[in-house]
Amino acid sequence: MKYEVKKQMYEGKAKQVFATSDPSIVMVHYKDDATAGDGEKKGTIRDKGIVNNKLSNALMQKLEKEGIPTHYVEEINDRDTFVKKVEIVPLEVIIRNVAAGHFSLRMGVPEGTPFKTPILEFSYKNDDLHDPFINHYYALALDLATQKEIDTITKYSFKINEILKKILLDANIRLIDFKLEFGRLPDGTIILADEISPDTCRFWDATTGAHLDKDLFRRDMGGEADAYQEVMKRLLG
Amino acid sequence: MKYEVKKQMYEGKAKQVFATSDPSIVMVHYKDDATAGDGEKKGTIRDKGIVNNKLSNALMQKLEKEGIPTHYVEEINDRDTFVKKVEIVPLEVIIRNVAAGHFSLRMGVPEGTPFKTPILEFSYKNDDLHDPFINHYYALALDLATQKEIDTITKYSFKINEILKKILLDANIRLIDFKLEFGRLPDGTIILADEISPDTCRFWDATTGAHLDKDLFRRDMGGEADAYQEVMKRLLG
Repeated sequence: MKYEVKKQMYEGKAKQVFATSDPSIVMVHYKDDATAGDGEKKGTIRDKGIVNNKLSNALMQKLEKEGIPTHYVEEINDRDTFVKKVEIVPLEVIIRNVAAGHFSLRMGVPEGTPFKTPILEFSYKNDDLHDPFINHYYALALDLATQKEIDTITKYSFKINEILKKILLDANIRLIDFKLEFGRLPDGTIILADEISPDTCRFWDATTGAHLDKDLFRRDMGGEADAYQEVMKRLLG
Repeated sequence: MKYEVKKQMYEGKAKQVFATSDPSIVMVHYKDDATAGDGEKKGTIRDKGIVNNKLSNALMQKLEKEGIPTHYVEEINDRDTFVKKVEIVPLEVIIRNVAAGHFSLRMGVPEGTPFKTPILEFSYKNDDLHDPFINHYYALALDLATQKEIDTITKYSFKINEILKKILLDANIRLIDFKLEFGRLPDGTIILADEISPDTCRFWDATTGAHLDKDLFRRDMGGEADAYQEVMKRLLG
């Protein structure tokens, strides 16, 4: 391995992050653990860690080619990847192309209703506050990001949406909505971080409308492990 | 009276609206009825209708002079005013200068914390959905307003904030946050509608921090009728 793996720095719901011999690089390990409903439902999805690792890495590499800087450095094995160490911007970016989930409930718009124009929204990444929905004025007022960072994140997010929609539709998958997280490099450069996977995106089969994402787990519908494999097969062959 | 008052068109929580002999003009009647907590708490605040009518009219006239178009036409008496008939844009605009109320609860920011820059937010005006917090992408995607309308509303709202802050501070009142509603004239012009009053603004005494607004009623603190009178006295002499 290019870098020597050192001690664990952080453990999240679905990933562990380890320091390496290079202070600018960390190793991400993808687990099969799954949570839903703000952590109330806990379980595992067989081989989810493998799918999310490989899929996220493949998609990040495609995004890099299209001009989106990402944290991706090198895939080590099925579950482990070296990525650039960043300071995470405490904003979750959600892009919605079609009404679904919490949005549909809050807004009274039936699940599956496409939007005229994509919706971008920010949540404040804060477990104690349960990641509240905010907007860019909140982010500025609370010093979560600068105007320039927000502009960059917004521009990248819409561009990522266009790129991913195309890649997915080629695999007969509709991109309903998804979450992104960005990070700051030491020089302040904003890059895409976290992951892009059936944990963080809603994927629907473009023909049947079948869920191919974590909603199968969230809603106790079953078949989530097979759906994750199906997404990987369609996208990575 | 300039216009003959005809039948009631609408009755809200705090106001009634009547048609007039001129189809472009309606009459607003301000009641003493007060509600809070999404309608769960009901009561009256003595002479609130008088304060809100006179105060809102005076502030709208000051805003007009500063270049903000408003619905104000003519005050008829203590509780009744002719205003331009508009189609209300289904967005509630909230401007926040200082953390308070629901914001403080959701965001974990102590009440009274001033922001570096004012926060603007939109709610979707929809009783069934309890006026959910949205953002401008929601408004566009759901066809609630055009980009041009949103730009105009945003520009006016921040300007109104600057004007009102100054007027109020001259009366030793701090403008903590407030709600605005805008309407469309038949030709599409966006104008300020609804009201500006202790029902729709948080006013704090600039010296003591005492509440001079509907929070006294919302929080069962008492003294709301006197506080409304105090605000009127300080602003209208």
